[in-house]
Amino acid sequence: MPAQGGLRFLSSDGAIKPTGTCLGASAGDFVFRRRHARHRSGEQCDPRQRGREERIRQAFTNTKVITESEDASLASRVRLTVFVTNMKRLRPLVNKIQEQLWASGPYPPRTILKVAKLNQDNIFEMEWTFFAPA
Amino acid sequence: MPAQGGLRFLSSDGAIKPTGTCLGASAGDFVFRRRHARHRSGEQCDPRQRGREERIRQAFTNTKVITESEDASLASRVRLTVFVTNMKRLRPLVNKIQEQLWASGPYPPRTILKVAKLNQDNIFEMEWTFFAPA
Amino acid sequence: MPAQGGLRFLSSDGAIKPTGTCLGASAGDFVFRRRHARHRSGEQCDPRQRGREERIRQAFTNTKVITESEDASLASRVRLTVFVTNMKRLRPLVNKIQEQLWASGPYPPRTILKVAKLNQDNIFEMEWTFFAPA
Repeated sequence: MPAQGGLRFLSSDGAIKPTGTCLGASAGDFVFRRRHARHRSGEQCDPRQRGREERIRQAFTNTKVITESEDASLASRVRLTVFVTNMKRLRPLVNKIQEQLWASGPYPPRTILKVAKLNQDNIFEMEWTFFAPA
Repeated sequence: MPAQGGLRFLSSDGAIKPTGTCLGASAGDFVFRRRHARHRSGEQCDPRQRGREERIRQAFTNTKVITESEDASLASRVRLTVFVTNMKRLRPLVNKIQEQLWASGPYPPRTILKVAKLNQDNIFEMEWTFFAPA
Repeated sequence: MPAQGGLRFLSSDGAIKPTGTCLGASAGDFVFRRRHARHRSGEQCDPRQRGREERIRQAFTNTKVITESEDASLASRVRLTVFVTNMKRLRPLVNKIQEQLWASGPYPPRTILKVAKLNQDNIFEMEWTFFAPA
């Protein structure tokens, strides 16, 4: 995506073109991103639980890779808002994955919310802001 | 509204004084705004659908006008969070309006959420951040 | 918490260690914070209502104290998102407390949302951003 006076948008790397949105934007000292995990069945034993954890982990891992490609790191995340469709099942998975990724801390300031519905078939979405001084 | 060391608040231009909130704030390299569309019946045939689309379009259009008056543009929007009370009916309207407004892309990183209830009679609210380097 | 190139995290001052989150982060020209109020019964007459109001006021007051310790003030708040589990009961309390705290205005741009569920037993959470130029 073209830069516009210090502003840069990140387009989707996947085959599916998202509607009305892009993956993120970099502007001034900050980077703004969104990520989701879709609802779909996995193929392992206990497929649903396995599938959920893997898909949420993938969303975090993708974020990590992209963040590092911008010369920043997960440690520079200054805000994380997590939206789930099932607090009881998904919050423990999010906590577990975060403990693995931010082993040395500190954790970002996080809010986790159960909402009535997410876009399409998503079970999990996150919005985050990280600090990447220009 | 008075400026306070590089910080400026935008007050409502309407007759209705919002409670506990203002329309937006400009600070450093960023502008923070909120906008909503109220629930009320329209007066055309298929009044409810027509009314909804018009009111949501109005919210986006107002945002566009205000943004341009600050020497910025919709293209400089770096985060958009949309809250609706009915995902099935309102998401297609939001997508349609966004396609018209951001014809040349890129779209801002957007999250759309169905929540249990919005302030007063609102059917739609949005929070957005745009980049306007000082 | 250690500073990392202009980035600083604020850890919890309480005995309870939050899972997967910290209280806030300071980065560049902005400070990002979160606060919540838990669900629990009070001990006064009409204990539930009294308890709620006090706990929400405490969340705002804690925020005020912390903000002022960073050489900023509530007036420099540029975004406030409030999440509640009961709009009808809690919105009037939030409005009342905000009127007391921001007596001289202007209010920050606020969005208030009823979500399906908050973390643990919380009845109220808020995310806010304030401007504190470096």
